[in-house]
Amino acid sequence: MNIERIRAAADRIRGHARVTPLLSSPFLDALAGRRVFVKPECLQVTGSFKYRGGRAAVSALPEAERAEGVIAFSSGNHAQGVAQAARDFAVPAVIVMPSDAPRLKLDNTRALGAEVVTYDRATEDRDAIGAELAEARGLTLIKPFDAPEVIAGQGTLGLELAGQARDAGIGAAEVLIPCGGGGLTSGAAIALHEEAPGMRVRPVEPEGFDDAARSLASGRRVSNPHLTGSICDAIITPSTGELTFPIMQALCGPGLAVSDDEALRAMAQAFLRLKIVAEPGGAVALAAALFHPRALEADTVIAVVSGGNVDPAMFARALDTL
Amino acid sequence: MNIERIRAAADRIRGHARVTPLLSSPFLDALAGRRVFVKPECLQVTGSFKYRGGRAAVSALPEAERAEGVIAFSSGNHAQGVAQAARDFAVPAVIVMPSDAPRLKLDNTRALGAEVVTYDRATEDRDAIGAELAEARGLTLIKPFDAPEVIAGQGTLGLELAGQARDAGIGAAEVLIPCGGGGLTSGAAIALHEEAPGMRVRPVEPEGFDDAARSLASGRRVSNPHLTGSICDAIITPSTGELTFPIMQALCGPGLAVSDDEALRAMAQAFLRLKIVAEPGGAVALAAALFHPRALEADTVIAVVSGGNVDPAMFARALDTL
Repeated sequence: MNIERIRAAADRIRGHARVTPLLSSPFLDALAGRRVFVKPECLQVTGSFKYRGGRAAVSALPEAERAEGVIAFSSGNHAQGVAQAARDFAVPAVIVMPSDAPRLKLDNTRALGAEVVTYDRATEDRDAIGAELAEARGLTLIKPFDAPEVIAGQGTLGLELAGQARDAGIGAAEVLIPCGGGGLTSGAAIALHEEAPGMRVRPVEPEGFDDAARSLASGRRVSNPHLTGSICDAIITPSTGELTFPIMQALCGPGLAVSDDEALRAMAQAFLRLKIVAEPGGAVALAAALFHPRALEADTVIAVVSGGNVDPAMFARALDTL
Repeated sequence: MNIERIRAAADRIRGHARVTPLLSSPFLDALAGRRVFVKPECLQVTGSFKYRGGRAAVSALPEAERAEGVIAFSSGNHAQGVAQAARDFAVPAVIVMPSDAPRLKLDNTRALGAEVVTYDRATEDRDAIGAELAEARGLTLIKPFDAPEVIAGQGTLGLELAGQARDAGIGAAEVLIPCGGGGLTSGAAIALHEEAPGMRVRPVEPEGFDDAARSLASGRRVSNPHLTGSICDAIITPSTGELTFPIMQALCGPGLAVSDDEALRAMAQAFLRLKIVAEPGGAVALAAALFHPRALEADTVIAVVSGGNVDPAMFARALDTL
């Protein structure tokens, strides 16, 4: 992975992915006790940054290979990012989802033109189903984070942010990024290291699922003991990736962890002060910026809100914290 | 009013007002039966397009006059737009608000650095209080819509939209704009007439408060029979302005009116598909785009979401429509 690959991805997604604005509010500055900027990737195509990586990966495939179609495993934001990217190129997309995934997510993924193949979590082997389908139909697997073109696509956020920060006169800053497998964190870290050397990326995770923070602290890639029990579903992964972790180790500052309640309160502040819709996992970096002031060092913090695919009931819970 | 004045306003607000993105969703296209784009001014500084006009008007004042301070009457979005613009220049702002205005709006306006002067709606004369303050302290009144520099400031949205539409390959379109006094509608109409002649602006109002539509239909400026009874508080005004109406008459297509329930349902769709927070009055144009297909003619419609300053309880009502 290098900056050239991210620049090439930026060229490929230009005019398709949105340039999300850089937002701020004097009320958030007052709450945090420092300058706070927010990069709202909830406004990205499909409602999360995942479209950047999906589009970058699908557009990087040789044309003949792409024409056969792509496949992804996901019940969430990656599914929609890949489905939309395949739709852009009018090529088939198969998304393998658990049969008990929320109806809305199944419906949305289908509505984006993807073929949804469901499996029973208890009795069927997801990877075997996927491998068989890929083999039989010549589909290319688009991994959710541990693949160079996906990391490069997510890294385009860093390039974009570097330019916006320059225009806004922001030099030094801590850049807080919601972290699951580390695709966005590592890609953005490479781009910012190159284009905005005064900035330091720090991953943010839910409490109890802070494998990235523990891995960075211990110097070796560790896993989460369990994978359920947080409302921040979008960023719960077993561990960071074989490709993403070494990049984070080289370039990122210490990780941060926030509670589910803090994520909900950050969603409420994003509603009230920025007029954006954040999902719980997408709000963890803003939560760290607002509610963990002593864990931060810089006078300026930039929080990425990575997605906004939240159902109304969960959003109502966030509003109830106001 | 002319395009040069809008271009000059755009030069003055550049780097202060945000360039709001142009959003879309295949789900909204399907619901509307045509291509739908949304210009989310809820993401503007202070949560509504009003900052454009406030900043444009305050920045146009001669320096000595500006230094004395400004005054505005408003309990809503114009108050915050003017307060923020005055804060930008570190000059005093006095906002005259009814003493029974929502505490949150009083607090927010104060938090933006303005001096809030309250009056009793039942026993005191707002205009007399304002005139006395302006006279005694040398404050300049910033009107909410019927003033050239305010119209020019709001018109910058039209310039911005024309460029974004060009980039997105949008030629002909109906541009639906929430309309109160007509500052945004008339300013944007001038800019689009000049820069995007394939587009036609149409004002959208709440049912029962559709003075602009009736005025356009009858050819003379009429008033609303009453000023309470809609949740779309941001765009309830007695009538369009002496300056704004003739511009609308020359350049705008017929007006549209939507119900409160449609405004709430549009807020819910904006939440679900665009991840933005719209207030009821800010959502009326999107409501017309989604729920009044037979009243529209163009294959492409662009709806301005003019603001997002809504309290959590009202937003929860919108979510309940899903």
